[in-house]
Amino acid sequence: MMLKKRSSEEIYKQACEVLTGGVSRNTVYRKPFPHYADKASGCYITDIDGTERIDFANNMAALIHGHAHPAIIAAVSRQLQGGTAYTLASEIEVAFAQLLNNRAKSFERIRFVNSGTEAVMAMIKASRAFTGRAKIAKAEGAYHGTYDFAEISQTANPSNWGDINKPNSVPLAYGTPKGVLDDVLIFPFNDIERTIAILDRQADQIACVVIDPIPHRVGLVEGTCEFIEAIYDWTRRNGALLVFDEVVTFRVQYGGAQEKYSVRPDITALGKIIGGGFPVGAIAGRADVMKVLDPRESNLRFPHSGTFSANPITMTAGFTAMELFDKEAVLRINALTEKAIHQIEEVIRLVDVPVSLTGAGSMFRFHLTPTPPTTYREAYQTKEANAVITELLDFLYFNEKLLLINTLSCMFSTVLTQKEIDRLSEGLLRAFKALKPKIDELRRT
Amino acid sequence: MMLKKRSSEEIYKQACEVLTGGVSRNTVYRKPFPHYADKASGCYITDIDGTERIDFANNMAALIHGHAHPAIIAAVSRQLQGGTAYTLASEIEVAFAQLLNNRAKSFERIRFVNSGTEAVMAMIKASRAFTGRAKIAKAEGAYHGTYDFAEISQTANPSNWGDINKPNSVPLAYGTPKGVLDDVLIFPFNDIERTIAILDRQADQIACVVIDPIPHRVGLVEGTCEFIEAIYDWTRRNGALLVFDEVVTFRVQYGGAQEKYSVRPDITALGKIIGGGFPVGAIAGRADVMKVLDPRESNLRFPHSGTFSANPITMTAGFTAMELFDKEAVLRINALTEKAIHQIEEVIRLVDVPVSLTGAGSMFRFHLTPTPPTTYREAYQTKEANAVITELLDFLYFNEKLLLINTLSCMFSTVLTQKEIDRLSEGLLRAFKALKPKIDELRRT
Repeated sequence: MMLKKRSSEEIYKQACEVLTGGVSRNTVYRKPFPHYADKASGCYITDIDGTERIDFANNMAALIHGHAHPAIIAAVSRQLQGGTAYTLASEIEVAFAQLLNNRAKSFERIRFVNSGTEAVMAMIKASRAFTGRAKIAKAEGAYHGTYDFAEISQTANPSNWGDINKPNSVPLAYGTPKGVLDDVLIFPFNDIERTIAILDRQADQIACVVIDPIPHRVGLVEGTCEFIEAIYDWTRRNGALLVFDEVVTFRVQYGGAQEKYSVRPDITALGKIIGGGFPVGAIAGRADVMKVLDPRESNLRFPHSGTFSANPITMTAGFTAMELFDKEAVLRINALTEKAIHQIEEVIRLVDVPVSLTGAGSMFRFHLTPTPPTTYREAYQTKEANAVITELLDFLYFNEKLLLINTLSCMFSTVLTQKEIDRLSEGLLRAFKALKPKIDELRRT
Repeated sequence: MMLKKRSSEEIYKQACEVLTGGVSRNTVYRKPFPHYADKASGCYITDIDGTERIDFANNMAALIHGHAHPAIIAAVSRQLQGGTAYTLASEIEVAFAQLLNNRAKSFERIRFVNSGTEAVMAMIKASRAFTGRAKIAKAEGAYHGTYDFAEISQTANPSNWGDINKPNSVPLAYGTPKGVLDDVLIFPFNDIERTIAILDRQADQIACVVIDPIPHRVGLVEGTCEFIEAIYDWTRRNGALLVFDEVVTFRVQYGGAQEKYSVRPDITALGKIIGGGFPVGAIAGRADVMKVLDPRESNLRFPHSGTFSANPITMTAGFTAMELFDKEAVLRINALTEKAIHQIEEVIRLVDVPVSLTGAGSMFRFHLTPTPPTTYREAYQTKEANAVITELLDFLYFNEKLLLINTLSCMFSTVLTQKEIDRLSEGLLRAFKALKPKIDELRRT
């Protein structure tokens, strides 16, 4: 198809007439109008207006090797010739399942779906099917995709979050059924005492405790070993499952963020990087738990299918990407990120702004506070702070040609080099300098 | 990646050690083991054991142009070089949105997601957000993907479906929350009087009535104009929305199955063929309703995003496929299907088996009854009937090298020709002859 060469502004005008809000994902919306990608290669992305930027967002953390990696293009091109989806199985799904299961001890059996949202939904449904219980518990502020039960209290705020000892179940979408709110318990991440007390109150009704071990929206703070172990022990005592959402965090170690802990989740939801740039999700976990999905069982507890699940294009791209993201590659990208963080901390000291960093592995997030937040309520940003963050993002995007995630976060790719790290540091230096008065001001409000 | 040449049986042995049930989708499971696709082209698919079959399943109705269509391969290959997914918008999503919106009057605004399941979930959540109500109503037996609320009573059976005047909400998955069951009303498809009575009972709590206009699992029977209009009128009187699941049925006319009716759904869920062979879903509908998703609104009622939503590969493949599936192509495939049905009806008369057909456009389904069922409860198959269906499917698959959908349905592609229709008719002739005693026997049980 040939499209007439138009500017982003012109395209957006048409977009507003056909797509709600002019976009299909709110994440790409930007004032006064979003930009349209022309092409992307490695860690560079060029918009249709001709501006090239360094990409530190990588499609919301999904592209571990950046854009258009030659090995992925080659493998996908081969598969394209033989078809993109069948009503038959394909060998590559087995090879990819094996490759992923080899990475983490808790992955005894796996199943593929089409997105992180579908993965978390399947994980919760599998937990209910295994335990026969309806309720789930999740951390206040944690993002787990768009399944109603998983998104409760994702954006809880001071006006509605309630007593920290018993946080309210706050709907994200208007019209969320009361039954959904009643079936979701909210706990404060990393707070052992309060969390256990909350779980204890409905101990015999909880199917699973859902944990993102480094929840982005909570502040990109790592779950402490003590916290994870305490929750694990609680689930063992109370017949519940401990399930991890590693859709984002699987990148931080070869076997995911769970490598760090002495205990293993019963099921893990995956997505993002394991698709090699194509739509993907997966749940992996204990063989006996995953058996609820087995079509050979006479009493199939959780019938589950999906037209595009495990399609050979996603499997091929994912296999290639994850084979490349081997132990050495993980070490390399984490070391590069650490180096970048050191440079950036130097910048922060130099400009003397009250900015702090959180994160792990190949990801980090900025906070406009002198010390990093440790909880969602601490990390919660006022309207004033959000406005400054938007200004910072715009400065970096328009002036410095750097694309970050809209929480002021970076998700590195393996194709970044020192050159791009330097551009990031220098860009941040100028951005922090330019906005220093406003950032300083936030401390006083 | 080079994989050692193995048989399907050998691959499945490994698959059982890594994937639950050895498969990632129950639909591809087959006794004693599923077959693995080697390659597919047009309407032919070859498994890794070297057997070529004619594909009448087309990845569960998702491939309107069969496999590896040259125009789709060419367009996707070009896009591959420039990246598969960005944290920016892309022009092709706007072009594709425009193309789809032009096809149906009810499509004023559209949003893309990654699967039919995600589309139906988003459609229900948008309905709740617009009306502020929690409940939905759906037809007994209708399949709408794997979102809990959408899958209630999908497999209701005589032991649990209850009184037809007030069908039970029957969970599909074990552990489904009671709140979900309470928030879903079940009605008998095409039964105006009973459906209105059921809706009336909770009139002020219903966000939307979900209708698949030709529900596959209900029997692939078309919704009557009277029924659809009666439901539409009821929703107007009671402040509810009428929403269509056209994930499967969009293929039957240029503007979907909804073209047939004098009334328009408020939202429509799409999927399958609009992805051109790649993971896709969409919701399209009234601009004022879709506004609940608009990020520019100060009071955003339904915040929604998705890492892979509207990714440029799916958009490119979908655009190409749907541009090719123009008015003429729709007429051609429907005429070919009609011709095939005539041939098959001749076969049925010739063998004199009590077999009937239902369907519309480019899809049809066999029933082992002398007259076609008109309701889910009539279409419901006993264990005995299911066993004969499996035998028929196996006969066609193994002896005649024909791949059908496991409900004994065909979903045609535009690349089929008279040659393949003849193979289908002849295969059915031999299959019906071979199993005639068993099919006849079903009438007496």
